[in-house]
Amino acid sequence: MRAVDLIQKKKDGFEHTKEEIDFLVSSYTKGELPDYQMSAWLMAVCFKGLTDEETAYLTQSFVDSGDILDFSNICDNTADKHSTGGVGDKVTLVLIPILACLGIYCAKLSGRGLGFTGGTIDKLESIPGFKTELTNEDFFNQIKTIGAAISSQSPNLTPADGKIYALRDVTATVDNKSLICASVVSKKIASGATSIVLDVKYGEGAFIKTPDEAIELGELMKKTGSLLNRKIDYIVSSMVQPLGMSIGNSVEVIESIEFLKGMCKKDLYEVTLELAAKTLINCNKAKSYEEAKEMLDKSIENKAALEKFKEIIEAQGGNKDVVDDYGLFNVGKNIYNIKAQKRGYINKLDALKIAHSAKLLGAGRDKKSDNIDFGAGILLYKKIGDFVEEGENLAQLYYNEVDKDKIKQAAIEAQSAFEIQENKVDISNYQAIYKK
Amino acid sequence: MRAVDLIQKKKDGFEHTKEEIDFLVSSYTKGELPDYQMSAWLMAVCFKGLTDEETAYLTQSFVDSGDILDFSNICDNTADKHSTGGVGDKVTLVLIPILACLGIYCAKLSGRGLGFTGGTIDKLESIPGFKTELTNEDFFNQIKTIGAAISSQSPNLTPADGKIYALRDVTATVDNKSLICASVVSKKIASGATSIVLDVKYGEGAFIKTPDEAIELGELMKKTGSLLNRKIDYIVSSMVQPLGMSIGNSVEVIESIEFLKGMCKKDLYEVTLELAAKTLINCNKAKSYEEAKEMLDKSIENKAALEKFKEIIEAQGGNKDVVDDYGLFNVGKNIYNIKAQKRGYINKLDALKIAHSAKLLGAGRDKKSDNIDFGAGILLYKKIGDFVEEGENLAQLYYNEVDKDKIKQAAIEAQSAFEIQENKVDISNYQAIYKK
Repeated sequence: MRAVDLIQKKKDGFEHTKEEIDFLVSSYTKGELPDYQMSAWLMAVCFKGLTDEETAYLTQSFVDSGDILDFSNICDNTADKHSTGGVGDKVTLVLIPILACLGIYCAKLSGRGLGFTGGTIDKLESIPGFKTELTNEDFFNQIKTIGAAISSQSPNLTPADGKIYALRDVTATVDNKSLICASVVSKKIASGATSIVLDVKYGEGAFIKTPDEAIELGELMKKTGSLLNRKIDYIVSSMVQPLGMSIGNSVEVIESIEFLKGMCKKDLYEVTLELAAKTLINCNKAKSYEEAKEMLDKSIENKAALEKFKEIIEAQGGNKDVVDDYGLFNVGKNIYNIKAQKRGYINKLDALKIAHSAKLLGAGRDKKSDNIDFGAGILLYKKIGDFVEEGENLAQLYYNEVDKDKIKQAAIEAQSAFEIQENKVDISNYQAIYKK
Repeated sequence: MRAVDLIQKKKDGFEHTKEEIDFLVSSYTKGELPDYQMSAWLMAVCFKGLTDEETAYLTQSFVDSGDILDFSNICDNTADKHSTGGVGDKVTLVLIPILACLGIYCAKLSGRGLGFTGGTIDKLESIPGFKTELTNEDFFNQIKTIGAAISSQSPNLTPADGKIYALRDVTATVDNKSLICASVVSKKIASGATSIVLDVKYGEGAFIKTPDEAIELGELMKKTGSLLNRKIDYIVSSMVQPLGMSIGNSVEVIESIEFLKGMCKKDLYEVTLELAAKTLINCNKAKSYEEAKEMLDKSIENKAALEKFKEIIEAQGGNKDVVDDYGLFNVGKNIYNIKAQKRGYINKLDALKIAHSAKLLGAGRDKKSDNIDFGAGILLYKKIGDFVEEGENLAQLYYNEVDKDKIKQAAIEAQSAFEIQENKVDISNYQAIYKK
């Protein structure tokens, strides 16, 4: 088999066999196939696509390139969720304790933030003492004893995807659905979960712009799961505006704790419920959506989820007192108020601009090696559909030591994220969950 | 400017500016832009194409990446021709002496054979003593004194194209017309000729399969010349069957000498005349096609072209006695006859199969470092339209030391290149020159 012939084959629109896909992935991972041939093939894939079967082969090749976690000695069902990335998305922080206190084992491997999306690992590290780099042994033990653990990714999972993703990033070959699907699904399969629910986001603050595209990607991931004998389900949720009221690291953990104390904002609640319900039903813990909703509501009401979050924090070396004393968090010492320039109804709240603003304050990073400031972030006071008086606060920027130009730029970005109109806004177009 | 943004731009079908093309080419040539980004861009170009303007910018970037030869101190007009590559194509060997003896300065840089196409440099080296690696000084001096020189390419011409061509070859990005055009035209422009005529070949033995595609490429090269203020013209010729009666190195030089002695085969004559006429008219040596034809015929009749060929051989260190004593050539000691298996009319003579057969005998190379045997080659006895009796010779294979399996394979290839039918063949479909 010669790589150049396989590139030509895809360029001409033909379908690869499993052996051909395996050859490309394994010889690339071993360093035998050079970057320039892989990138030419990836570009041909962007134009000619992969069939569902090819996508499944690619996914399996990624899985086979590294370790595969196996929790079958610990428990029957392990659940995992994954979001395609958004702004203010703290769902993992609330969903894991809820599911774990309802008897579902959660083995969660998360990433750090990059570009305009935040990462669960960064958020958790804003809890003083919280360790995210668990050894395999600690990870398994913690799942066995308290039912949940959240760790940064092991380098031995899907190394082929890691190498190919890095190449896609610099060759404008990121935005192909089959490539995205193989990257996401392979990681989930290698992580060993038996129930996988994916949160496919669309809108200004996501890399997918329309609900239809999100559904297409979701269906492809579901189909890939079924071709590889894994139960994968998905939801489609909106990232037209940020999720919840906070964007950053400490501020998002605080909002999550508030949520578990019963102060649920509607959009965050809806996304959490949708993911929880699908997982509870998949794992045979609930028979219906209604039953799942009752279980979730009760776990918040009786503080079981909050207690489980404290257990997780403690197990991973963090200070669980943060739950009752937010003063223990690093929250930006300085505040800048973004005020409404006229009265009316918010008809736009651009998630991408808010993300850029938060990044300028120090909450995000451009490249992996950048440091972030856990204290930097944004609190939203108004969201789409809300009424506001002229001069009233729309948002507050929190920051520590940042140079003045960046603050100014961040303020301009945040201000311009909001649009206000005289007439009432029909918020039925801005629901958090997109109903297929 | 970031390469990844330019790749995305082309992938999305947008047009590059001159600055963007220059950036891609110059940073790639300097080694600042990695192979994997260039190959992704090249693949995007294969799908989205380049406009005529982009093609001209790319061509100019290639020219600017290296030296540009300048003959204006020596003469007003220098002519150059280029064939897109074929089987048995010895036109350069006869055209250069003809033009030179008619007062046109010929500065010809040629290449070696690779894959299924032969190279003028290899053919000339089959003349004992003939030196093809001329220094710049010797090249210029010879043009000044005898009006023509043929040298292997200087490494300082269009190095950007050299680097990109090597990458295209292994990433299935060879077959885009704009990329082919930029590669061919840049080399011709850098070679300094004022009149450039291109021979665009189509058919089984060419990489372009149909006359329409050949015309499209020819027009693009002409347009590129005009955008860069160079007079470029082209002809379209058939490579459905090999050109002339010989394929190899020594055998092709012998056929060329025979041609200059007046033993002109029709197809080789037609292609030579077409290229000569365009050049003579471009250089104001002839006013019409008819006048050019008369000049060419006379140069053969009065042996002026043959004498010029002897001058060139002598000037480049070769033994000019070969012209009168073919025994001085290395011609394969062994002969294998390919005989007709039935009587009838030849209706197919596959140029590609003949080329493969000749390569198996030792006349060609798979990779640059392979050695070739000047004595290996094929003499054709019949071409499309000819009548043949059962058992009559179709062709003869000439070879020296080759292992038996290869000879056997070569014979099978050569035999299968011929197809014979009962009915007469309409040879009007197999003309050497395609009339637009």
